[in-house]
Amino acid sequence: MLKVEKQRIGKNAVMLALLEEGEEFNLPGNWQSCRGKVGSMDSHKVVAAIETAAKKNGIIKTDVYRESHALYHAIMEALHGVTRGQVQLGDVLRTVGLRFAVVRGNPYENEQEGDWVAVALYGTIGAPVKGLEHETLGLGINHM
Amino acid sequence: MLKVEKQRIGKNAVMLALLEEGEEFNLPGNWQSCRGKVGSMDSHKVVAAIETAAKKNGIIKTDVYRESHALYHAIMEALHGVTRGQVQLGDVLRTVGLRFAVVRGNPYENEQEGDWVAVALYGTIGAPVKGLEHETLGLGINHM
Amino acid sequence: MLKVEKQRIGKNAVMLALLEEGEEFNLPGNWQSCRGKVGSMDSHKVVAAIETAAKKNGIIKTDVYRESHALYHAIMEALHGVTRGQVQLGDVLRTVGLRFAVVRGNPYENEQEGDWVAVALYGTIGAPVKGLEHETLGLGINHM
Amino acid sequence: MLKVEKQRIGKNAVMLALLEEGEEFNLPGNWQSCRGKVGSMDSHKVVAAIETAAKKNGIIKTDVYRESHALYHAIMEALHGVTRGQVQLGDVLRTVGLRFAVVRGNPYENEQEGDWVAVALYGTIGAPVKGLEHETLGLGINHM
Amino acid sequence: MLKVEKQRIGKNAVMLALLEEGEEFNLPGNWQSCRGKVGSMDSHKVVAAIETAAKKNGIIKTDVYRESHALYHAIMEALHGVTRGQVQLGDVLRTVGLRFAVVRGNPYENEQEGDWVAVALYGTIGAPVKGLEHETLGLGINHM
Amino acid sequence: MLKVEKQRIGKNAVMLALLEEGEEFNLPGNWQSCRGKVGSMDSHKVVAAIETAAKKNGIIKTDVYRESHALYHAIMEALHGVTRGQVQLGDVLRTVGLRFAVVRGNPYENEQEGDWVAVALYGTIGAPVKGLEHETLGLGINHM
Repeated sequence: MLKVEKQRIGKNAVMLALLEEGEEFNLPGNWQSCRGKVGSMDSHKVVAAIETAAKKNGIIKTDVYRESHALYHAIMEALHGVTRGQVQLGDVLRTVGLRFAVVRGNPYENEQEGDWVAVALYGTIGAPVKGLEHETLGLGINHM
Repeated sequence: MLKVEKQRIGKNAVMLALLEEGEEFNLPGNWQSCRGKVGSMDSHKVVAAIETAAKKNGIIKTDVYRESHALYHAIMEALHGVTRGQVQLGDVLRTVGLRFAVVRGNPYENEQEGDWVAVALYGTIGAPVKGLEHETLGLGINHM
Repeated sequence: MLKVEKQRIGKNAVMLALLEEGEEFNLPGNWQSCRGKVGSMDSHKVVAAIETAAKKNGIIKTDVYRESHALYHAIMEALHGVTRGQVQLGDVLRTVGLRFAVVRGNPYENEQEGDWVAVALYGTIGAPVKGLEHETLGLGINHM
Repeated sequence: MLKVEKQRIGKNAVMLALLEEGEEFNLPGNWQSCRGKVGSMDSHKVVAAIETAAKKNGIIKTDVYRESHALYHAIMEALHGVTRGQVQLGDVLRTVGLRFAVVRGNPYENEQEGDWVAVALYGTIGAPVKGLEHETLGLGINHM
Repeated sequence: MLKVEKQRIGKNAVMLALLEEGEEFNLPGNWQSCRGKVGSMDSHKVVAAIETAAKKNGIIKTDVYRESHALYHAIMEALHGVTRGQVQLGDVLRTVGLRFAVVRGNPYENEQEGDWVAVALYGTIGAPVKGLEHETLGLGINHM
Repeated sequence: MLKVEKQRIGKNAVMLALLEEGEEFNLPGNWQSCRGKVGSMDSHKVVAAIETAAKKNGIIKTDVYRESHALYHAIMEALHGVTRGQVQLGDVLRTVGLRFAVVRGNPYENEQEGDWVAVALYGTIGAPVKGLEHETLGLGINHM
């Protein structure tokens, strides 16, 4: 069994995104997190699903732009891992089915480092035909 | 504890790359795999370390170009997740310390799908100063 | 107060794009220029707004392709500065509100250099929610 | 007259894509190929047109994902040559009129190399206005 | 003369980078800033010059990673505007001569937004031959 | 045998780059051209080889920057086709062996279109090991 130390905010987010239904995983410490699913050919819907989940679960404050800004760039970085070259889905005739996890906390010993956010995406990418797809994964990390 | 089903070649590779020292993880089925570490500011050294490990461990045949070609593109795709935008390290003044895993096998039920390869990278990326870094992860998958 | 020497076609374009309402700025020499505004989630509308303004104001000749070609690439280069990675707006759930300036003239002493074009964009980029945005700027320069 | 040796799968594909109406070109050996045309501002329609032609002509097997996967990446690589930077058409207000050719065969002496696929695209790219365009060409090659 | 309102952190940084020798420009409010010059074919030297200046002038705290991280991404975004496509200089046989400005402060009315950083680059880019160059400009903005 | 009409400056450049030793090809009309070879892991050496050949053969004027600028961007666009994603060679552990052709002329009926330049690259790309490579091709076109 894999241990996940507290300070590994990225590894924790990835483990959450890799969870199958029925599996559980305890985030160490007092970190915040949320999970969700999204399937789409529209990359903006992937972005929106993650932002909405993070706001609904209180991971980021809706009325503080810096928190949205931090999350947005973490999402975009995770999408680079998923798309591997061009951040495009339907425009290049492919679709994704993703589980996502967002984790917020301070992964460093120094309190001055404040909160960071990790966004992990895991699922499949491929043609819009069942079965013509393979796995994909992306991780984005940013200071809050 | 996370289950990893046989057909998840990408998830298996990621789990292998996430292993800490002393941890173990059994790859399901008759798949082949190898693991290693590489730290560098030169992206070509990351590519070379993975290729060398895959060849030494018999994951790919040295004298068949298609196998090198398949692995190369899987590595490049994994590097996109690690670098998130420009596949550059020292050129933009950053360095990586990575563990990598390469897994080879057929993740599909249909035997005609043949072998595929998954390359997972996990570690840290940041300034060439200890501590000024955060986690990073990339996954590339290709047909062999 | 900033001086803008004649030969700085890029600086001149940027200064024009930075003008607030009511401010004035005299372009040195016999250069041609036009200004405008565009707000959109569609990157092609940004391109179209600038091309249309440049044609209406006689900055480029409508029936000579080389002039459209020169302007198009200057616009695309300016968009790289605005988008910083992927030339995408709505596809990655963001929108822009931009002022633009196009300047045409020869910034070099040698007459053989002929005309060049500079496109400057300045404004905001962010989520499609008022206030969730920051400034952005791009400059593209091409020979005519 | 240009000779095209058997092993030049890329050159063969390019020659096929360069053919004007009424011209003929004999593919050497027992390679498979198909040709077609597509004009669009939607990059996904270019991808779809090539995939459909390749399937209809039996170049790739519809029910084996690895073959679709190999072709898809060859198409994407060819589109990089056509678009030269961002794989975008209408999103950046440009359109293409392309002839395409897909060739399948083993270009290497070693039988173990198996089949490879080459996708060549040739035509025009430019503004959605007749005449405001220039030629463009792309070639993608992948192991099958 | 152009006014620069306090909240325009990007515009302020650009104005500072556009200053010619002997010109002065007063940054509004209690914002921090520094300026400098760098010329190089090595993109990592541009990054290093800006980071060093920001640390020496106390714009960012050396021992708090989040501040280095924030600045680094602002620099990278500014370099996108300068390089317009591939963040490469000598690798594609071109060189830059740049003036840079870094500004730190809160450009929003809400105190919770905290500090942001703006990096502006202005100068020339071109072949490593005097005169074969044109202007270039980039702006990157990030939350601190 | 393929016909190449006068106005196809791109097709002409590609045909020149595809020529094997001993083959001949007559460029139609009064266009200028030059050919050459370059093999390297350094992308800047590819750029330099083409620029040098174009200058030595009088395709572009050494002392007029706009001509260097036009050629440079045509080369960069051709390199996009060759590299298909990141304009990198040795940095991602690959090398090229290329033949190149540069053609200059007016491909349009309207004399006002003036001269354009086409750069075609054809050869192999792959690991720095003989035989571990496949063909590659790129075409860049720009107004002069």
